[in-house]
This record gives sequence, structure tokens and C-alpha cells, in this order.
Amino acid sequence: MNPLTSPLLTDLYQLNMLQAYLEDGKTDVAVFEIFVRKLPPRRSFLMAAGLEQALQFLENLRFSPEEVDWLAGTRRFDKSLLDRLSDFRFTGDVHAMPEGRIFFANEPILRITAPMPQAQLVETRLINLLHFQTLIASKAARIVLAAPSKLLVDFGLRRAHGAEAGLLAARASYIAGFAGTATMLAEHEFGIPICGTMAHSFVEAFDSESAAFESFARSRPQNLTLLIDTYDSEAAARKVVVLAPCLSAMGVKIGAVRLDSGDLIPLARSVRRILDDGGLSHVTIFASGGLDEDSVAEIVHAGAPIDGFGVGTSLTTSSDTPALDCAYKLQEYAGRPRRKRSSGKATWPGRKQVWRSYATSDGRMAGDLLSIDSASHPGEQLIEPIMKDGRRIGPAPTLSEIRARAASELGRLPQPLRELEPGMTYPVQIAEALVTLAAEVDNHLAQSERVQP
Amino acid sequence: MNPLTSPLLTDLYQLNMLQAYLEDGKTDVAVFEIFVRKLPPRRSFLMAAGLEQALQFLENLRFSPEEVDWLAGTRRFDKSLLDRLSDFRFTGDVHAMPEGRIFFANEPILRITAPMPQAQLVETRLINLLHFQTLIASKAARIVLAAPSKLLVDFGLRRAHGAEAGLLAARASYIAGFAGTATMLAEHEFGIPICGTMAHSFVEAFDSESAAFESFARSRPQNLTLLIDTYDSEAAARKVVVLAPCLSAMGVKIGAVRLDSGDLIPLARSVRRILDDGGLSHVTIFASGGLDEDSVAEIVHAGAPIDGFGVGTSLTTSSDTPALDCAYKLQEYAGRPRRKRSSGKATWPGRKQVWRSYATSDGRMAGDLLSIDSASHPGEQLIEPIMKDGRRIGPAPTLSEIRARAASELGRLPQPLRELEPGMTYPVQIAEALVTLAAEVDNHLAQSERVQP
Repeated sequence: MNPLTSPLLTDLYQLNMLQAYLEDGKTDVAVFEIFVRKLPPRRSFLMAAGLEQALQFLENLRFSPEEVDWLAGTRRFDKSLLDRLSDFRFTGDVHAMPEGRIFFANEPILRITAPMPQAQLVETRLINLLHFQTLIASKAARIVLAAPSKLLVDFGLRRAHGAEAGLLAARASYIAGFAGTATMLAEHEFGIPICGTMAHSFVEAFDSESAAFESFARSRPQNLTLLIDTYDSEAAARKVVVLAPCLSAMGVKIGAVRLDSGDLIPLARSVRRILDDGGLSHVTIFASGGLDEDSVAEIVHAGAPIDGFGVGTSLTTSSDTPALDCAYKLQEYAGRPRRKRSSGKATWPGRKQVWRSYATSDGRMAGDLLSIDSASHPGEQLIEPIMKDGRRIGPAPTLSEIRARAASELGRLPQPLRELEPGMTYPVQIAEALVTLAAEVDNHLAQSERVQP
Repeated sequence: MNPLTSPLLTDLYQLNMLQAYLEDGKTDVAVFEIFVRKLPPRRSFLMAAGLEQALQFLENLRFSPEEVDWLAGTRRFDKSLLDRLSDFRFTGDVHAMPEGRIFFANEPILRITAPMPQAQLVETRLINLLHFQTLIASKAARIVLAAPSKLLVDFGLRRAHGAEAGLLAARASYIAGFAGTATMLAEHEFGIPICGTMAHSFVEAFDSESAAFESFARSRPQNLTLLIDTYDSEAAARKVVVLAPCLSAMGVKIGAVRLDSGDLIPLARSVRRILDDGGLSHVTIFASGGLDEDSVAEIVHAGAPIDGFGVGTSLTTSSDTPALDCAYKLQEYAGRPRRKRSSGKATWPGRKQVWRSYATSDGRMAGDLLSIDSASHPGEQLIEPIMKDGRRIGPAPTLSEIRARAASELGRLPQPLRELEPGMTYPVQIAEALVTLAAEVDNHLAQSERVQP
């Protein structure tokens, strides 16, 4: 069973509930929405990502004979459930914010409308897919805002949480504005530009640093980047200057040097001076090594001569906030709105829509209104129909289109939200209609339970 | 291409270096070691995990015809490299600490001894696999120490970083002492016990909470756990008391109730009282909802009547420390020790071993010595031969054996290291032989470079 596609990559309770729903005839239409309850401390906005993988999951959802047999063998489930799994498909509707959209707390980014057993079963993997890419795109957007006009590359596969995380982090960061990734498979899977330099081990395998540089240059004459911090970065920069004419004679033009340690601001200045004095002003400086949006912003602010950054661990683990407080909640069942009232986790009921207004002065986002889907309000509707009866309504946007949308969204952020320390809370208003609906749901529940609230 | 097994799930620079190594005849034996440079702030020890998946990766490493064709199509690589990929296999040796071992900063947990091209190519995925499970086992161990004798279950799949992270987090936390997981596929893949309850959506789909409980009980009469916090936990506990005789008449015994929100300490006491007063003292209380080792410790310390915990996001993302500062570094090439001297990232050269001493009084760990592999020291050697010429030396330990080793290791931790706030730094001594070797490597390098240090 392939964990990336198996419907058994889910919580046991989903199958338990599936059986109970089927036995009880609870197969009416259910509406679930995914949203983030609260923005993390240092996030003033989030960027939606992962919808494409979520849709692929829904389109391809099926139980293989092997999976049904294995479930039967666990003796946990009745024949009434097992018999229905072979034909189990997702036949519902999906409404969602397109990838690259900026959104805020309580705003649904995806709505599932489907018979209850289907809508319930998909919960775990839908969250798993949407949460992660949204998390990474939102982190990457901060780095992009901190380093405008710098070349940003994802270096994070090795410390990403497993294979899928590494691959999807490359996608999510590319959407948010990174120029590319070091992860080869991301080119194959998504067509993302990849780039790569050399490791310290390569330099160490040679008797001298110069010999390593020359060997690498012979083998990789295109886009040559030399890693210069294995022993002493300034000494290595001087070796690069000495080597350059010989390499030039071989037809190799050095593209960049990479610094991966040390105090990057003074070091980059010193290396820049050495390169410039040696006639290598065309050679760019690329930095990596434990960078995040704060250190990148500091370097940019100091005006250090660094042209690009490889960002790894902090990006692919969203290290300061490795998870979002997101949920997939039942909003309606059998035509009646529902809500949870758990302490501190109450939700707004019903099918919802977000209307966004823009300032007439500069076209930037001015405020959102969260209301019931059937209401009518001025502004741009952020949630769009994506899938009908289990099939996509239109063709999937290309990654370039998604990336362009993300760039446009970042361009329309109010200035205080573009800072690393949130300077304001973006206004999201709850419409009166939604407040009224919540009260109605509570009243109905109190009557059903014959308990006075 | 399956990202879980493809050798292209790697950094581009590995293939670039591979070609340069082959062109330059740099195919002598290289020795690389994986270690953690520094323990994160709130970790006083780490637990090794992920070796089994790392070994499977090495055993199955090969380029499919499709992968070679795709690489050829990128026009990045010469025929000299492409022609050799079809037969590319890992034929090296592996030495490692077995899974479940406790280790500290600078201690290698895995050593690869193989021809340079092989040893280099495996870097990215080896780190990716070992880092993640070690990270999660180390986090899980803290939760286990914080809640001795409580039932601990991994609930984290939905917010884990992708599919593989969710699945491997179930494995790593089970190794460290969790009782099981909610992730179904973890039973299929690893034989880990799984358990599950019900979601709020199930309760909300019914007109009343009691109707939902009764329906679920009919469908799932075994190990019945009822989720009682959808609307009002105390009211729901009273409904459970009212329902119990009817369920009992149906042959259903309620096993547990689950709380997923609210102020858990007073709430659990109140619910316990309601259950006890209703003759349900056998019904246990299970809690979940944003828990981590600190909140679990607080609950345990307060003596709240909670019998088990579902821990999700904080566990599967290791939320306070979502990455370890680990590295895969060249230690020796062509028979000569090597080291990196980058600022703040210098490494100890050569093949290393760790010797551990235990206190004679109580058998607990007393201190480690890091030295060169060929040295002779008293104590237990932690790094063992695992694979020879690409084949495993012995059968893989079972997950139960690994779990037993982890439990034994936790039992031998000095008491201050068992606290959530590290009360001491465990002594790891660097042997004189290693210091001398490092100086020799530096001297040799200085001579090769003809630069005075």
C-alpha cells in the first residue's frame, strides 16, 4: 500500500464512524469546511496552498482489493461496510480559495459538500495536505517579503519531515515566490527550477581547495558556484581570484561563490572586496546556513553584498510555527446548519463565503467580511466552485499561474502586514447573518435536547 | 517516480558531485558520519530512530530506466555518468547505534563506509530519514517521562508534515513508549496497535448527543469511547450515566469518555465525580486537544483523574523544536582523516566510537567518551556493525525489541535528565586521541595548501 495514496492513511475513527453512519442511514449531504482558528503569533496573514494535491486525493480516492482484504482481516468492521468499500468514490462538490490566495483566521479555505460517509472519511488526509503546504507557503511568503529582489532557493529537503514534506515544501515555497529548489524530484514532479552547488565533502576529498574547485569547474562548467567556507572563506576567495584566469582559459566562467557559515555580513563584504579587486565583480555571492526571515532581513537591511539565499530548515519545517491551528468542521448536515460549542473551540455554522474589499486609493486589501454563502455583499468573493459531483469544473491552473496570483496577492497586502512583526490585525468582520444563524443553531439544539441553555 | 523510494529525491548537487567524482576518479573509500552538533534548548538527550528505514533505502537504492531517461533528458549530465546509473548500487558498510539508543551531541549515530560516489549520493535521504524519526522519538520520550503509567496515543497524522511524516511519527513515538496511534496504516506497515474514538461531527450529525452516543455504541460495541465535549462536557457525562443501563442491556460496556477541550484538570475531576456517582467508576477518562509534555506533566502533577492522553500536533511536528542541528560529514577519504573547519561548524575527524560508562551504584549512565574507532577504552561501545558490503549483517530487530531497548535506555537515564527542564548536561568527554588527530589533519591541510595556518 502506497502511503501517499492509500485511503488507509487516516485515523481509525474515520472508518469506525463510516460504519456507524452506514448502519444508521446517516448518508445525507454533509458540509464541512477547513479553516484556521487563530493566526500564530508572528503571522499576520496566511497563504492558501495544497489545493491541487487535495483535489488529486479526492479524484483518486479508492480502496484496492488488497486494502479491503486487509481491513476484513483486522475483524474490526462488518461486511456491510466492507462490501461498500470497493465502489467507494468521492462524488461530492468542492469550493475553495485558489492556491496563492491570502487569507485570515476563521475564513474557510475549502468546503466539502458530499454524502456524510464520504465527507467524513476524507478529513484526515485533506487536512494533512492543505495544512502543510499552507504552512510552508505562509512561511516562505515572509522570507520573500524580507528579501525583495534576492534569489531565494529552497535547501530544506534533508531536514524536512520525510519525503512528501520535502517535495511539497519545494512546491509551496515556489508558489510563494522562491526562485527554485535544490530538490531534483521537484523538477520532475512540478517543473520547478532546480539549482545546486557543491558540498564541503567534495572540497575535503581533495588535497587542496584549489584542486577541488578546478575539478568541479571542469565537470560543471555551466552555472558554476564554488563553496568557499570549508576552511577559511577569505583565503578561498583569494584562491578563486587566482583560479579565475585558468578557468576562463578552459572556457569556464565562475558564476557565484557560496558562504555557508560565519558572520555573513562582514564576511560577504570582505569576500566581495576580494572578488572585485581580483576583477571578478560579475561573480555573485550566495549565502546559506541556518537562515530564516529574520537573519535574511538583517542582511538585507545592512546592505551586505549577498545576492541570493539558500534557506533550508527554517523554511521546510516552518520552524518558529511548525503547525497551524486548523480544523475541518461540520457546518451543515441534512440541510440543517450545525456547530460545535466546545469550550474555546466554538465554530461558525453553515456554508460560508468571504467578501474582500480593496482600498480605492492604492488597491490594497482593506478588510474581509465572513458571512453565509447565500448572502449578498459587496466585494470580491474569495471562495470559488472547484469540483462538482466529484469532477473538476475547469482545468487546474498551472504552477506559474498560481505563482503569479501569489505575487499579486503579496503586492496587495497592506504595508503593516508586509513587515515581519505584524503591525496591525487585518479586519475580518463577522456578518450579522452569521451571528443570527449561530443563535438559531444553538436554540434548535437546546430544544432537541430538551435542556434549557 | 515514487518519492518515497526514488534516488532523485535528493539535492541536485549530489548528482553534480557524482559526475565530478567519476570524471576525476575520486572513487576511493569515503567515511561519512551523521551526528547532531548541539542539543536543542530543552533536550537533555536524544533517542536514535529511523535506522530501519535508512537501511531499506540503502538496500533498495537503484535508478529505474525511467529515472535515467529523465536525467538524460535534462541534458545536465554526461553519458559517462548516465551509463553508470543503471548498475548503481550501495555496496558499502554501515555502522550505527541501534534504534532506541539514547545519545548526545557530537556522537555519531550512523557511519557510512563506501566508495565516494555512493557515500555522497545517499546523504540527503539518509539525513531526511534519520533526522525525522530521531526528532520524534526524542520528543515522544519526553512525553513518556512526563506521564509514567498513562496510556499515550499518537493523534498527530492530520498536522504531521505530509504522509510519510505521519506514518513514521507513529513508529518513532511507539518506539519511545507510546502505547499506539490513531493512524490506521501504521498497523498495516509496522503492526503498531491502533485505537480510535469518534469526532465532534458524528455527534453534531444527530439531533441529540444521546442519540449519537447510542448509535455509535450499537455500531462499535467493543472498546467504546464516547466523545463528550461537543456542547457541554458535564451535561454529556450525565447523559452517559443515563445511557449506561440501556447500553448494558444491549451488551455494550462503555470503556471510556474523551475530553477534547476546556480546562482539563477541574473538568476531569467533575466528570470523574459524575461517572463515579452514576456507578461508572470503571469508565476511564481520556484527554486530547493541544497537549504537549508540559500540559501532560501539569495534569499528572495535579493528580487529575485522567487515564490516558491523545497527543497530536506537538508530537508529530516536535513543535518546540521541529528540527535538530544534524549533519552528515566526511570523516575520512582514501584512508586519510578529513575535517571541515568552517566557522562554528568544525567537526572531529576520523572513524569514531562512543564508549559509555554506568554508575556502579544504580546502573545508570554516568558518562560517554568519544574517541577514534581503533582506540581501546573501558565501557560499552554504542556503535555497532550493521551492514557489510551492502548487506545486513544480522536480522533486523523487531519493533518490540527496539521498544524494549528504548524503555531500558530511559530507565538508565540519570534522574536530572528525566526532568522536562534539563537539570544537568550529560558528560561527553573527547578523547586525547581525537584531539591529536584533529591537529594532524589541520597540519596536513596546511602543508598541502602551502599556507601557514
